[in-house]
Amino acid sequence: MDTYQRILDSAKELIYAKSYADVGVAAICEKAKVQKGSFYHHFSSKQELTLAVIDAYYTDLKAVLIEQAFNSGLPPLERFAKFAELSIDMQIRLHKQTGHVYGCPLGNLGTEMSTQDEAIRCKLDGKFASLQKLFRATLQEAVDRGDVKGINVDITAQAMLAMFEGCLLLAKTHNDPLILRQLLPAAAQLRL
Amino acid sequence: MDTYQRILDSAKELIYAKSYADVGVAAICEKAKVQKGSFYHHFSSKQELTLAVIDAYYTDLKAVLIEQAFNSGLPPLERFAKFAELSIDMQIRLHKQTGHVYGCPLGNLGTEMSTQDEAIRCKLDGKFASLQKLFRATLQEAVDRGDVKGINVDITAQAMLAMFEGCLLLAKTHNDPLILRQLLPAAAQLRL
Repeated sequence: MDTYQRILDSAKELIYAKSYADVGVAAICEKAKVQKGSFYHHFSSKQELTLAVIDAYYTDLKAVLIEQAFNSGLPPLERFAKFAELSIDMQIRLHKQTGHVYGCPLGNLGTEMSTQDEAIRCKLDGKFASLQKLFRATLQEAVDRGDVKGINVDITAQAMLAMFEGCLLLAKTHNDPLILRQLLPAAAQLRL
Repeated sequence: MDTYQRILDSAKELIYAKSYADVGVAAICEKAKVQKGSFYHHFSSKQELTLAVIDAYYTDLKAVLIEQAFNSGLPPLERFAKFAELSIDMQIRLHKQTGHVYGCPLGNLGTEMSTQDEAIRCKLDGKFASLQKLFRATLQEAVDRGDVKGINVDITAQAMLAMFEGCLLLAKTHNDPLILRQLLPAAAQLRL
């Protein structure tokens, strides 16, 4: 694996396990087995690396959750249930491996960084906007097929995203992925 | 104001505005206008101070939001709407003062610290449990009065708390308190 990718993968893993502030360039270099000079050849700062890390988180979420749920060929409303199920599996797997519920990599950085770093906040906000757009289009498809009636697709999409994030936040603070089994399916069924 | 209180108030304000990791003992001492020796006379560590800060956040939330909404004499279900309304006002006020949506002081620390500090995680989890208990008792009162039927008060209370937290997380990442005007009333009306 090339140096760029090793730095990116190390940062992804460390920041998700801890936080932005608690992961320094030195720790990232140590994990990636690269020298600091090499780090700064690829990234001008930890901030610049983190913007790439956020893109990588979203790419991973796409591969592990989004594509499998939303390009699954399932009827639109069932895709949300699938998304919930895959999210629960992911948190249970992480909890088994590490003893911790890691929560959402985007939500974690959103609460930590949004008052402190405008570039990071905007990057995260764009990812949430993409997710919300996907939720909205899926709900609209359900409306168009007549699977659901009388809902506001904009507000429902946003509320569903909020509830997904809030469920992951509570599961992380409770350090118990099993509360997601009750809560995420409820988020998937939200209709406003 | 005595030294203990000045340290506590400074830490409360700085940690809510930034994060746990980004606020050091030196910055807290500077803001509180105390010497480091005096800090360590009152608190053995930043962690110990933060446990007191979490208690203080909850005391503030009680004074500003919880008491006013839940001891308001309103019918039980309307108390949630009042809680939502006061929460929106608080975030709009902070946004006007600072240019930022600060979100929930408990949720912010929950996502930042839960994989990293077990004492802080447990303290936060206890506060969420208190809020959830209050929500549950209020929903039960509504059921007992016949205001609402066929809901699961346990799951609804937990889902409502999750949605409140998720809404604040999205508003913080979007840096726009106005999205709360749509989302928090929906959280208050959640019935599962």
